[in-house]
Amino acid sequence: MLANSNFAPEWRVDSWLNTTQPLSLQSLRGRVIVMLSFQMLCPGCVAQALPLASRVHATFPHDQVAMIGLHTVFEHHEAMTPVALRAFAHEYRLQFPIGIDRHEGSQPLPLTMEVYGMRGTPTWTLIDREGRMRQQHFGEFDPLRLGAEIAALMLEPGATATRDTGATEAVSCSDGTCPVPASPRPDDAHAHA
Amino acid sequence: MLANSNFAPEWRVDSWLNTTQPLSLQSLRGRVIVMLSFQMLCPGCVAQALPLASRVHATFPHDQVAMIGLHTVFEHHEAMTPVALRAFAHEYRLQFPIGIDRHEGSQPLPLTMEVYGMRGTPTWTLIDREGRMRQQHFGEFDPLRLGAEIAALMLEPGATATRDTGATEAVSCSDGTCPVPASPRPDDAHAHA
Amino acid sequence: MLANSNFAPEWRVDSWLNTTQPLSLQSLRGRVIVMLSFQMLCPGCVAQALPLASRVHATFPHDQVAMIGLHTVFEHHEAMTPVALRAFAHEYRLQFPIGIDRHEGSQPLPLTMEVYGMRGTPTWTLIDREGRMRQQHFGEFDPLRLGAEIAALMLEPGATATRDTGATEAVSCSDGTCPVPASPRPDDAHAHA
Amino acid sequence: MLANSNFAPEWRVDSWLNTTQPLSLQSLRGRVIVMLSFQMLCPGCVAQALPLASRVHATFPHDQVAMIGLHTVFEHHEAMTPVALRAFAHEYRLQFPIGIDRHEGSQPLPLTMEVYGMRGTPTWTLIDREGRMRQQHFGEFDPLRLGAEIAALMLEPGATATRDTGATEAVSCSDGTCPVPASPRPDDAHAHA
Repeated sequence: MLANSNFAPEWRVDSWLNTTQPLSLQSLRGRVIVMLSFQMLCPGCVAQALPLASRVHATFPHDQVAMIGLHTVFEHHEAMTPVALRAFAHEYRLQFPIGIDRHEGSQPLPLTMEVYGMRGTPTWTLIDREGRMRQQHFGEFDPLRLGAEIAALMLEPGATATRDTGATEAVSCSDGTCPVPASPRPDDAHAHA
Repeated sequence: MLANSNFAPEWRVDSWLNTTQPLSLQSLRGRVIVMLSFQMLCPGCVAQALPLASRVHATFPHDQVAMIGLHTVFEHHEAMTPVALRAFAHEYRLQFPIGIDRHEGSQPLPLTMEVYGMRGTPTWTLIDREGRMRQQHFGEFDPLRLGAEIAALMLEPGATATRDTGATEAVSCSDGTCPVPASPRPDDAHAHA
Repeated sequence: MLANSNFAPEWRVDSWLNTTQPLSLQSLRGRVIVMLSFQMLCPGCVAQALPLASRVHATFPHDQVAMIGLHTVFEHHEAMTPVALRAFAHEYRLQFPIGIDRHEGSQPLPLTMEVYGMRGTPTWTLIDREGRMRQQHFGEFDPLRLGAEIAALMLEPGATATRDTGATEAVSCSDGTCPVPASPRPDDAHAHA
Repeated sequence: MLANSNFAPEWRVDSWLNTTQPLSLQSLRGRVIVMLSFQMLCPGCVAQALPLASRVHATFPHDQVAMIGLHTVFEHHEAMTPVALRAFAHEYRLQFPIGIDRHEGSQPLPLTMEVYGMRGTPTWTLIDREGRMRQQHFGEFDPLRLGAEIAALMLEPGATATRDTGATEAVSCSDGTCPVPASPRPDDAHAHA
């Protein structure tokens, strides 16, 4: 886990797939963000990471966990164009929102990838409800562990929630859709203040 | 999730593998228990459930989560003897404790399997830190979801802990070994008291 | 490939599963024999070799290719008993004939395994139509290569054929069931009469 | 198997990867041709067919069996461009020659795909040593069966061979590199003359 003070830098994205409007860290504040940086021609992304991302998207409630793809092209730029990505996302039936990381000038690395200090693809980044970067993982991610990490972040008190709600519902997973809420308790808010 | 009042019945076990002394729900109180009921000649157990159980055992800290196997033989009794189970566990390098469910008279179903109302193998049972049965799942368990369910139970305040400790360490997953503690904070204890 | 003069030693088998009468190399003469030596508690056998053997049995015509299992127990003898093997074969839906390799005295290695010089399980042995041992392979066998090896042996003239015929029928695979004959035509039949 | 008289139509290809000069059915006469028609954004091609094609290329001797890819783009034309295919082939380490099927006018189906009557991707086509189309298979191809089909075609007397050689070397697979030669026997040659 990274230090709690490490706020995730805002994304620099050219355009989005699978969402009616552009997304931002700010607009997702209050949810756990699971971000997968990938390239459509990266074999490990296609074989392992993207199917797992689709399962994250299908498993956790969307008002609690936002699965976000980030297309971070740092090689073969002429092959992995936006139009190619759209065809790829269609053929592989990717349902979660995907942002296309922005390039500046002739830099091979796109901007978001660079500012996040990613080492390659696939890279998983976990961002907590308050917008802090809590984990960055390069390579294959064991699904058992990923599920545990996501649930742990879900069960932390979130920024907005802390201020707005006083819910005390017991934290638990349901049989049907897993990890249910994670609402903070009022005293926690105080304790952390 | 099952109702919270549903305490898991004590195990009726003849003998144990991979542990120096017999285990009981009572002796594991305070830990989350992940119990896998299996048969050594059940193909789905061998191909999917047991490897996942080994990963649970390798992933979560043993003072927080107890991975327990239960050999619930309800068919081919003459084949799946204790000596055969020991050879099986050795060949498949199973490391977690395994209890052999007890038979009474000529009943095909062993006692623990029957009292838990299991429908077959593999069956996963999740028991919380206070000994309550919180989930029972027959068949293949998605690792992503299982990880989330385990973490959610780890992060609940445990029976003893709630009353006895005042630990305040922030709940989180570490990069290295996943889901760390789960200790309640003092104010929580109050809030729940 | 082993030298052509290497005739496969006759099997020393105690009893058979999945066949109404005991089999012998002699009784299968004229067919290609694909023999898989395995142990029911050998993980590599269960995960890879036995499913492949089932596909061999389902793919090739039985009057051309005989898929034969040989249970060569050389460890955990008390666990891998004949009754346990029967339960195992039932649960894993093995359909091909399986012989139980014979033990003599207190020798850990069974007789057939020893005379064939096998190094462990799984071991694949390919025997040609004339009864010669043509290949022995210890460990995982690539299905693409195994398919090619079997077809090559199928397409060799068989014992009788070599002496009696000048068969010219085009060798080919059909769309439906793969590798088509190689069979003895009427004159062959005479030769066998 | 298709009728023997069905000669495979010549390819209509714009350009080639992984070969120093353009290939043609004519230039490969005398070898068995295993042709895989695929699209780089077809999930079944990427997950199953292309890895199997790479194994075919690695398993059989190149002077006997030619593994050929054919990029038959019939959808998402703007995404699956030649430059994208080159990046894809590089990332997935495809080593066998790949032709890019030619488009004419605004027809969505490329020319070779159309004349071969293919129904989609992946499609496997097996062509014998004399240039006849012997099998066409749409969808997943069982590796065991594919290996057998290839070996069966290898072991048929080839066009050139039939006329030029009288080799009598026994047909067999070696332990090392599978299916060796395929030389016709003199009498066969006669029978076919």
